[in-house]
Amino acid sequence: MISGNNFIVEPWHIRETALDLSLLDESESLFALSNGHIGMRGNLEEGEPHGLPGTYLNSYYEVRPLPYAEAGFGYPEAGQTVVNVTNGKIVRLLVDDEPFDVRYGELLEHERVLDLRAGTLTRTAHWRSPAGKQVKIVSTRLVSLAQRSVAAIEYTVEAVDEFTRVTVQSELVANEQVPSSVDDPRVAAVLDKPLEAVGHEHSERGAILLHRTRASQLLMAAAMSHDVEVPGRVEVTTGAGEDWATTTVICGLRPGQRLRIVKYLAYGWSSLRSRPALRDQAAAAVSGARYTGWEGLLKSQREYLDDFWDCADVEVEGDPDSQQAVRFGLFHVLQASARAERRAIPGKGLTGTGYDGHAFWDTEGFVLPLLTYTAPYAAADALRWRASTLDLARERAAQLDLTGAAFPWRTIRGEECSAYWPAGTAGWHVNADIAMAFERYRIVTGDDSLEAECGLEVLVETARLWLSLGHHDRHGVWHIDGVTGPDEYTAVVRDNVFTNLMAAHNLRTAAEACLRHPDRAEELGVTDAEMADWRTAADDAFIPFDDELGVHPQCAGFTTLREWDFTSNTEYPLLLHEPYVRLYPAQVIKQADLVLAMQLQSHAFTPEQKARNVDYYERRTTRDSSLSACTQAVMCADVGHLELAHDYAYEAALIDLRDLHHNTRDGLHMASLAGAWTALVAGFGGLRDDDGVLSLDPQLPSGISRLRFRLRWRDFRIKVDANHKDVTYTVRDGPHSFLTIRHAREEIKLGTDRPTTVALRPREPLLPEPQQPPGREPLRRRKL
Amino acid sequence: MISGNNFIVEPWHIRETALDLSLLDESESLFALSNGHIGMRGNLEEGEPHGLPGTYLNSYYEVRPLPYAEAGFGYPEAGQTVVNVTNGKIVRLLVDDEPFDVRYGELLEHERVLDLRAGTLTRTAHWRSPAGKQVKIVSTRLVSLAQRSVAAIEYTVEAVDEFTRVTVQSELVANEQVPSSVDDPRVAAVLDKPLEAVGHEHSERGAILLHRTRASQLLMAAAMSHDVEVPGRVEVTTGAGEDWATTTVICGLRPGQRLRIVKYLAYGWSSLRSRPALRDQAAAAVSGARYTGWEGLLKSQREYLDDFWDCADVEVEGDPDSQQAVRFGLFHVLQASARAERRAIPGKGLTGTGYDGHAFWDTEGFVLPLLTYTAPYAAADALRWRASTLDLARERAAQLDLTGAAFPWRTIRGEECSAYWPAGTAGWHVNADIAMAFERYRIVTGDDSLEAECGLEVLVETARLWLSLGHHDRHGVWHIDGVTGPDEYTAVVRDNVFTNLMAAHNLRTAAEACLRHPDRAEELGVTDAEMADWRTAADDAFIPFDDELGVHPQCAGFTTLREWDFTSNTEYPLLLHEPYVRLYPAQVIKQADLVLAMQLQSHAFTPEQKARNVDYYERRTTRDSSLSACTQAVMCADVGHLELAHDYAYEAALIDLRDLHHNTRDGLHMASLAGAWTALVAGFGGLRDDDGVLSLDPQLPSGISRLRFRLRWRDFRIKVDANHKDVTYTVRDGPHSFLTIRHAREEIKLGTDRPTTVALRPREPLLPEPQQPPGREPLRRRKL
Repeated sequence: MISGNNFIVEPWHIRETALDLSLLDESESLFALSNGHIGMRGNLEEGEPHGLPGTYLNSYYEVRPLPYAEAGFGYPEAGQTVVNVTNGKIVRLLVDDEPFDVRYGELLEHERVLDLRAGTLTRTAHWRSPAGKQVKIVSTRLVSLAQRSVAAIEYTVEAVDEFTRVTVQSELVANEQVPSSVDDPRVAAVLDKPLEAVGHEHSERGAILLHRTRASQLLMAAAMSHDVEVPGRVEVTTGAGEDWATTTVICGLRPGQRLRIVKYLAYGWSSLRSRPALRDQAAAAVSGARYTGWEGLLKSQREYLDDFWDCADVEVEGDPDSQQAVRFGLFHVLQASARAERRAIPGKGLTGTGYDGHAFWDTEGFVLPLLTYTAPYAAADALRWRASTLDLARERAAQLDLTGAAFPWRTIRGEECSAYWPAGTAGWHVNADIAMAFERYRIVTGDDSLEAECGLEVLVETARLWLSLGHHDRHGVWHIDGVTGPDEYTAVVRDNVFTNLMAAHNLRTAAEACLRHPDRAEELGVTDAEMADWRTAADDAFIPFDDELGVHPQCAGFTTLREWDFTSNTEYPLLLHEPYVRLYPAQVIKQADLVLAMQLQSHAFTPEQKARNVDYYERRTTRDSSLSACTQAVMCADVGHLELAHDYAYEAALIDLRDLHHNTRDGLHMASLAGAWTALVAGFGGLRDDDGVLSLDPQLPSGISRLRFRLRWRDFRIKVDANHKDVTYTVRDGPHSFLTIRHAREEIKLGTDRPTTVALRPREPLLPEPQQPPGREPLRRRKL
Repeated sequence: MISGNNFIVEPWHIRETALDLSLLDESESLFALSNGHIGMRGNLEEGEPHGLPGTYLNSYYEVRPLPYAEAGFGYPEAGQTVVNVTNGKIVRLLVDDEPFDVRYGELLEHERVLDLRAGTLTRTAHWRSPAGKQVKIVSTRLVSLAQRSVAAIEYTVEAVDEFTRVTVQSELVANEQVPSSVDDPRVAAVLDKPLEAVGHEHSERGAILLHRTRASQLLMAAAMSHDVEVPGRVEVTTGAGEDWATTTVICGLRPGQRLRIVKYLAYGWSSLRSRPALRDQAAAAVSGARYTGWEGLLKSQREYLDDFWDCADVEVEGDPDSQQAVRFGLFHVLQASARAERRAIPGKGLTGTGYDGHAFWDTEGFVLPLLTYTAPYAAADALRWRASTLDLARERAAQLDLTGAAFPWRTIRGEECSAYWPAGTAGWHVNADIAMAFERYRIVTGDDSLEAECGLEVLVETARLWLSLGHHDRHGVWHIDGVTGPDEYTAVVRDNVFTNLMAAHNLRTAAEACLRHPDRAEELGVTDAEMADWRTAADDAFIPFDDELGVHPQCAGFTTLREWDFTSNTEYPLLLHEPYVRLYPAQVIKQADLVLAMQLQSHAFTPEQKARNVDYYERRTTRDSSLSACTQAVMCADVGHLELAHDYAYEAALIDLRDLHHNTRDGLHMASLAGAWTALVAGFGGLRDDDGVLSLDPQLPSGISRLRFRLRWRDFRIKVDANHKDVTYTVRDGPHSFLTIRHAREEIKLGTDRPTTVALRPREPLLPEPQQPPGREPLRRRKL
């Protein structure tokens, strides 16, 4: 586990001042750079030691067999796995005759800094070789947000106290040896050397390698080119082979003299384009990067980020950890999505191979809310990606004997890759999550064009799915049976409240969207009768309620299931120590489910129901999923448990900076990092939008003295500045001179001419703060 | 599919008069010989052509990996698979220089006869070689019921119309090439050559091969020895290698002269005994067989079977197909169990590799009722096998965080081998099925000693399992959640009626057994309080009932689930065309579940409930499982639909003789074959025992004019002889001069001095005969 001392707490940087080899994997994830198209883990330039070498291209994957000891109809036969592509980060250094390797000699100084405003990772090393020669190395790396195909590294070596002969080998390496993460020999075989060489070429200062995946037949190109600066004589040569290219730079440095190399990298891949076309594309991109130059790349990087922070930054006064963490999260979510451009946003972004590089409902459920309010163009592109997979989702629905479209539980390209159906296929809610993300985008941006372009078709086909999934019983009540909600410890149940509410929302939203786009709806074959059926199903959807306890059962009968014995079964996460056959029929919860329903479908619950439900589910939630703390933060804040909410917000934000789930090595948790924003903005800011109105209702925990955040709403830019007494709303840039919002459940008008300050609504919790299951109390952040 | 013409309908034989190569696999299963220890498929002596060569030793298996694309805690990692052991059936023949092969030359006559009273398979072939030489071959094969380790073949060749040189090679062959049935390359690799040679030796007329499985490390020995008779000069030599041994017999035959060879075979295996010990064991067994001689083996075989038929035969007048089929079924069930002696009775017996050779709840649920009434020693041994796996079942329960013992869903040796938990681990009822089989044995035989020996411990540990699986809700109602009943199209549900009734029976039976054996119960740590808890749980077990419809839902909420659309989804079996995610939440049933509850827990249902339940479930049952028709037969007869019951009885009985499930090639369906007996005896004979009393209540369908069957009950031998008017009970051999039974719901006293004839209870169905789902009407046997 990472302690608070490994990374210095600063508002805009993640700084490491000592190299802890036992945390190499984790730091590689934390220091990963990406623009949503290219992803590079924070591996050391010299390649070794490493935790997991990683360079990824969004949606560049290999197909692998999914084995079943007992197969069933409709089980996916092929999985998709992100592959480690040609590594362009490698810059090896020989000091006289000795390779620079932190495991040998002496590392006199070490620092790595991830700069959240500059968008760079800078490393400084002062090293004494085993023979006693000292060098100072400074490398700065970026993956360009402005130039999508481009990454670059500035690498400088300085001789310290005597003349030093320096040899730098800057490389492209394909099919690196990677520690295997799977124990299935067939799968390991597929991924052992995933890339087939199809071409290589080189010039004096650069090279291009072309490869293709064996089964998925995706072509990729990686190109490099170098600028070299050094006071004296220098020799630069380049060679290349099937899986390698090396530019070698040799020179002598007197004390204080420096060798500076800028390495420009370009990547491209395609399932369609020819080898020459892809080769030219990479060559052009690397030339473009050289033309822009290092300083130019740095400048455009900063400008891109300045623009982002201007309307996304969150300021958390009084809690420097959360301050750093929420910006860290925003930065990584942006990195995962900025230039994804109609590709998926994987659960781990492009920071590691966790979950095989798959995208889940995490995207629409947790990441897109943040992006919709802060970088709506990126949200729109992510939604366009989903819409682009609609035909595959239609095929899947047809295979399952359903109408409409069934989007996959996990995928890279759009095909269902989930091999365990009770927590995959049965998690139908992913379809309603997607529909809601389209609707949220329309409401928040005020832009109907995405709906016209592709959203309507998604809404219609998902509504059709729900109608074929649900059914009216003989009493006219509409049920969805055999369904799994967000909570993966309770599966294949009747009437999961979250799913039923979200499905009803999907059905109604589809009907309303059809009225907005009647011609397109007609093309899709939607009739008045079909729309009426959607509304009827939505109106008749069963929402179970336990009158005796005054709480909503998460699904039919949930509150009468066996209670989990937390006194004797407390090894977490439970799924590694207890079988599903025991977890499913017990009142034990992996992650917010009913509680998430109260956040996303806030209008369907009274304040008293919210209070009682939070109290009930807090006592039974293990938070074994990383998709939980943020939601618990929001709803604990909602019902007045502000200190507990602060604890959860902290957990969500620090998940990777403290490696709270012990798997940051596999990549960062994008949904939780986005959830950190949600915890602050929806939790302590009170942001809701499920009624189609911007609703805010701030209230701060004692540990946060002031919270400022920015939102985009229908071309307005809004700043919310809350303290313990009041909140000041500043609105600018909008299409009108005022904006009506809901503050603390009341409508107020905000003028664009001047800030508006209003008092907060004091919140008294109905119930005392609840207990969590033993051993699952959150990390405490409260200031007593 | 096998038509009615492939096998001639005779009361005591299965006779094939033409060799249809397209049905070779199926005929190999039908003509399989076994004694429960050794199993031999009905392969042709010359080895080729074959469907699936198969020689099996009960519980001799190899371990193989169980692959999971997404694994979970508690999933079994290793499977067990029956292996094809050294083949001793092979007797090759050269006619002059041409190998006898039915695919070449001309097969002028062919006959195979399985004799159900002799316990032999006899084959007659009259063949003309491609060169025109004619020979007549007669082979008779048996697997000895009297000498457990022994099989034997009498092989005769006769020259027909000219002098013929005849060469016979009688072989042992290990690691035969077998068509692969799995598409997982790792598993196929394990089973490709499962046997490692550890020794071989030969004499002039015999040989022994010793092998060991690679992973499970089970040692086996196969031995052969030959008697040769021929008029003229003969040369007999034997050779052997690692995987083969051959005795070669060469002679010349004039027309009408015969070569007769008797091949004695012996098999043994052990996980403990040394190589020399096992070698000696096989050598002694083969010597013993020679000592007995062919005629002696034939005689003891017939005596064993005479004794069996004396108290097991069922006579079905008016329905010759069912007459043949029920005897065929009884014969094969006996073959699967007679000398199993504390080994499992697999679902396919030892007739094929279907289900990997695993034993399921089929044994206790379907096979043991028959054996308990007809061959109680075999039932006792099967129960002793279960009890011998108790420690493994305890370990499994502990792994699943449960108390007591959890017996496996499928296994060879006792470890859980089910890789799909919703239809495996969650099928907890297997534990109650086992408990009930112990209790039935005690009631029917009147023998408490098995309970004392091992049954009590099983009852106690399974009762403990139920207590930890179920729970009382806040209203004091006892539920079992997350459970799968017999019907595999509805899984992981609440309060499956079958399971709850069977669990309650298990709990009560355990408590009563503890009172019978107080000392042993105390040793097992059973207290009065624990017994009280068992009884309370049993009394409070929830049995859902739908008052509106007047039927029992199969599980909580079942009658409000979506109805299956049979008009558009009618490709059977549904599991090959529809995903579980769609089947589970619909009112579609694979196999009798609630209907089986009404058979096994008859006392818990009123006649009206039975009638309404049969009517309701008939309309929704696809009979996609082979464990259904027999139960439907019993309960349709119970509620007065006698013609429909006859249809189902016929389906159960003919399942393999007509290949109704299209997988007879993989082995016979022991449960359905046993079920054919149950359909007649419990269906048309009305046999019930769940109240602890022998209850009979015969009523025949129009197509059966007279039904006679035999039962053992507490040392009595009872013959029941029913026609359409009355029934005659004949009781003999018992410990008293009379026996009280329940006839047609009334108690009557049967004297052993003379038969008792009583009138039948006329049965008027409450409801008209129900419809089945379209396409799932049974084969019609009724005589209109």
